[in-house]
Amino acid sequence: MSDHHIDLNADLGESFGQWTMGDDAAMLDIVSSANVACAFHAGDPLVLLRTLEQAFSRGVTVGAHVAYRDLAGFGRRYIDYAPEELRADVLYQLAAIDGMARTVGGEISYVKPHGALYNNAFTDDVQARAIAEAVASFDSGLVMLGLPGSQLLAQAEQSGLGTAVEAFADRAYNSDGTLASRREPGSVLSDPAEVSQRMVRLVTDGALPDRTGGEVRIDAASICTHGDSPGAVEMARAVRAELEAAGVTIASFAGKRGA
Amino acid sequence: MSDHHIDLNADLGESFGQWTMGDDAAMLDIVSSANVACAFHAGDPLVLLRTLEQAFSRGVTVGAHVAYRDLAGFGRRYIDYAPEELRADVLYQLAAIDGMARTVGGEISYVKPHGALYNNAFTDDVQARAIAEAVASFDSGLVMLGLPGSQLLAQAEQSGLGTAVEAFADRAYNSDGTLASRREPGSVLSDPAEVSQRMVRLVTDGALPDRTGGEVRIDAASICTHGDSPGAVEMARAVRAELEAAGVTIASFAGKRGA
Amino acid sequence: MSDHHIDLNADLGESFGQWTMGDDAAMLDIVSSANVACAFHAGDPLVLLRTLEQAFSRGVTVGAHVAYRDLAGFGRRYIDYAPEELRADVLYQLAAIDGMARTVGGEISYVKPHGALYNNAFTDDVQARAIAEAVASFDSGLVMLGLPGSQLLAQAEQSGLGTAVEAFADRAYNSDGTLASRREPGSVLSDPAEVSQRMVRLVTDGALPDRTGGEVRIDAASICTHGDSPGAVEMARAVRAELEAAGVTIASFAGKRGA
Amino acid sequence: MSDHHIDLNADLGESFGQWTMGDDAAMLDIVSSANVACAFHAGDPLVLLRTLEQAFSRGVTVGAHVAYRDLAGFGRRYIDYAPEELRADVLYQLAAIDGMARTVGGEISYVKPHGALYNNAFTDDVQARAIAEAVASFDSGLVMLGLPGSQLLAQAEQSGLGTAVEAFADRAYNSDGTLASRREPGSVLSDPAEVSQRMVRLVTDGALPDRTGGEVRIDAASICTHGDSPGAVEMARAVRAELEAAGVTIASFAGKRGA
Repeated sequence: MSDHHIDLNADLGESFGQWTMGDDAAMLDIVSSANVACAFHAGDPLVLLRTLEQAFSRGVTVGAHVAYRDLAGFGRRYIDYAPEELRADVLYQLAAIDGMARTVGGEISYVKPHGALYNNAFTDDVQARAIAEAVASFDSGLVMLGLPGSQLLAQAEQSGLGTAVEAFADRAYNSDGTLASRREPGSVLSDPAEVSQRMVRLVTDGALPDRTGGEVRIDAASICTHGDSPGAVEMARAVRAELEAAGVTIASFAGKRGA
Repeated sequence: MSDHHIDLNADLGESFGQWTMGDDAAMLDIVSSANVACAFHAGDPLVLLRTLEQAFSRGVTVGAHVAYRDLAGFGRRYIDYAPEELRADVLYQLAAIDGMARTVGGEISYVKPHGALYNNAFTDDVQARAIAEAVASFDSGLVMLGLPGSQLLAQAEQSGLGTAVEAFADRAYNSDGTLASRREPGSVLSDPAEVSQRMVRLVTDGALPDRTGGEVRIDAASICTHGDSPGAVEMARAVRAELEAAGVTIASFAGKRGA
Repeated sequence: MSDHHIDLNADLGESFGQWTMGDDAAMLDIVSSANVACAFHAGDPLVLLRTLEQAFSRGVTVGAHVAYRDLAGFGRRYIDYAPEELRADVLYQLAAIDGMARTVGGEISYVKPHGALYNNAFTDDVQARAIAEAVASFDSGLVMLGLPGSQLLAQAEQSGLGTAVEAFADRAYNSDGTLASRREPGSVLSDPAEVSQRMVRLVTDGALPDRTGGEVRIDAASICTHGDSPGAVEMARAVRAELEAAGVTIASFAGKRGA
Repeated sequence: MSDHHIDLNADLGESFGQWTMGDDAAMLDIVSSANVACAFHAGDPLVLLRTLEQAFSRGVTVGAHVAYRDLAGFGRRYIDYAPEELRADVLYQLAAIDGMARTVGGEISYVKPHGALYNNAFTDDVQARAIAEAVASFDSGLVMLGLPGSQLLAQAEQSGLGTAVEAFADRAYNSDGTLASRREPGSVLSDPAEVSQRMVRLVTDGALPDRTGGEVRIDAASICTHGDSPGAVEMARAVRAELEAAGVTIASFAGKRGA
């Protein structure tokens, strides 16, 4: 019998005021970790509070999905923050979400930057360090979730934080282990069966097929099931079902939990 | 020798991005309590962090100056929030400021709503209750600072919070103990000597002259020295000097402090 | 053969950044007038531009759906603006939408305040006057669309603007001609057949049944088919079909058009 | 007798809500062109309206000081806008300011991007083209004001717009005619006498001393007198006085005016 286990994470709490986004209730029944928006790129205080309540009530672990301050751009546009500005903005978001989590009997367990902040922190050591320093100054027990080989995880380690590697369920990989650009054809996978089988292989073998016919090795603690594509819920559900059918336990990579 | 004591509070941390407001450094040398903006009506995360550091380094007690979400209106315009929206917005602000305070070795000790939220909570029991519930759910050890006879303090008591009454240094009072409207001539006092003498009388006698020649009794724990008028720093400095000359100790009404 | 005619209007362009709202393409095939959000309560410049292009390409007349500056509240919360602030905010929105309209070969023809601004301007003569003055100072040829008996239309007339009365397709009416409060049971109608028949009666007889069994007379130039309810498109389509079946011509009440 | 003439421009209308910035009244008595903020990086509708009224009443020509949507960063942080987003955001700002200008009897005459948008458009042809296309689609009679050799002016020309070159009064120049980076010592000049004499030489000889002891030739239509430095008003006043003493006429480079 397998003793494999993996975390499934998704971006949640991204509604804003009268605008809804995604099907959070459905996703919370599938994932073990929720990257919850902190009201800088999406979410507002009421959405945030309700998302925390729902996540903790289902035993889903919560991470802070920190972002640039850019509602109009949904955090998807790089912004040339000075490091002290970024450190303060990240710290504010961490404090807000964790303080709210505590009023509903939980706490945050990890941090995953969102959108352009996440992408930029792959290579930008200055912004990556600002994020890591903000997290470490707030709570050195928090884990940073990111891509292998990223400045984000390197700076997190230098700041004394734990780190966790994630793989993307619906993305093609280059032979060097990096994600294929979304602009290239075939870089986003849409067949739930194919994606599910890839994820089983990832968890059981620690490897994924790359775009050239070879394989890349990824020691992933979590799988990101989020996608902007229609059918995101179906995709996530298929991945979870196939993993469970293969005897894989779905569980948070991080220890802390809601009440 | 007198054993009188009183707290002096002022609104601080109200700069935003490239825009500065007030002379926070000067005021922090005068007051014992700082009502620090939480980035909803003024302030931004970097301003907030620096204000907290400066306040704690001077031993000034910090309160959360929570507000409506209205940078363009500086929190001075009443907004018809639904109670659950207000509760969430206040909770978010409390969490953000307190979490940031803890990273610099302090914590918040009290809450004072800002501007239109403060004014409206004098009579609006629904919004006052939403504020009180947010504070109580976050930390029942926080003290609510407000006007005597206000719904704000009544709802705070019902929510199990401690309360503290403040008087306004530069405002005229009606005979029923309420503030004279700013629109009435003579409602805002501008002579530092007059204001200082009134404050000495308030602290030593528990009374202030009202507009009709009578007196009103106010059991104030704090004096608000903030004013939009030019000369706010001079006014506050004069009040402190006159109180100290009269043997009054200036000290926070709340117990918690920064490191 | 009937020579009855009426305008159908709906709120459009209310998406914001990554968040979509409503099915604008479907509604633009049904209505003759589009109340287009100006980016203060909803919409952003790119959404606004595309909505204008789509409306003009279908020959739909455009009105400025001006609002309080409150994205987080979607313009549905009353804000206690000073009149000069409101005048400036409305003028800015009018200028922005009309200037953008002209770059795509059209222009705006009327103004309909949104949400809480619309509701408040029923009775608040000060805010209603500020809106009317902003519109008149921008273009005295614009028509104000609103409720009969409202301060909004009274102040518009005093400012020399043309006015047009609208009726609400899916709302019950009190016997004095005012809308039944949304909080009362039965105040929002959801049966497309019932709503459609009421609208045919409104257009052909100038009357609607009220809640007491009597009738109210409304000389409406336009019918608001907007609704937050699911099924808004189906409702609007049913109303249009029933009106056309009764020989009613659907056409804008305002003369100007896109190219 | 000299027939030299030059324009003096400055950034104005950058107050926001309760926050003031700069001494607009003083600057409007010195400059011939006002780069007026459009409420995306600074300014709000009421500030904008009042700034337009003051500029036109003094006969000062107005340009649109368009910017990234970033109040918190004051438009000084590069944002990775997609071109269609930038085109729409610039168009919205142009429409808003020009429409407001017309209600007070004026119109805008030119466009000068602000802060990071201006800096980035020196080399970024994609964003520069988006700005130029927005301006050309709005009013092909507008002039683009910018740095010689910039993509901003190149794309403006390609879009059929007139262009005007500006020099910076208080900045040192490299030998290739570019501005010395603010991070280098000596790059920002603070002596009013030195700056004034440099500007007289620029206008009368078409040349400025560079940092290496050589000279750079600049065919400037305008001098930017704005500076974040304290003493900006004194600097601008000194430049104007010295130019007038040398027989130089101070006048807008653009033809249109307020009423």
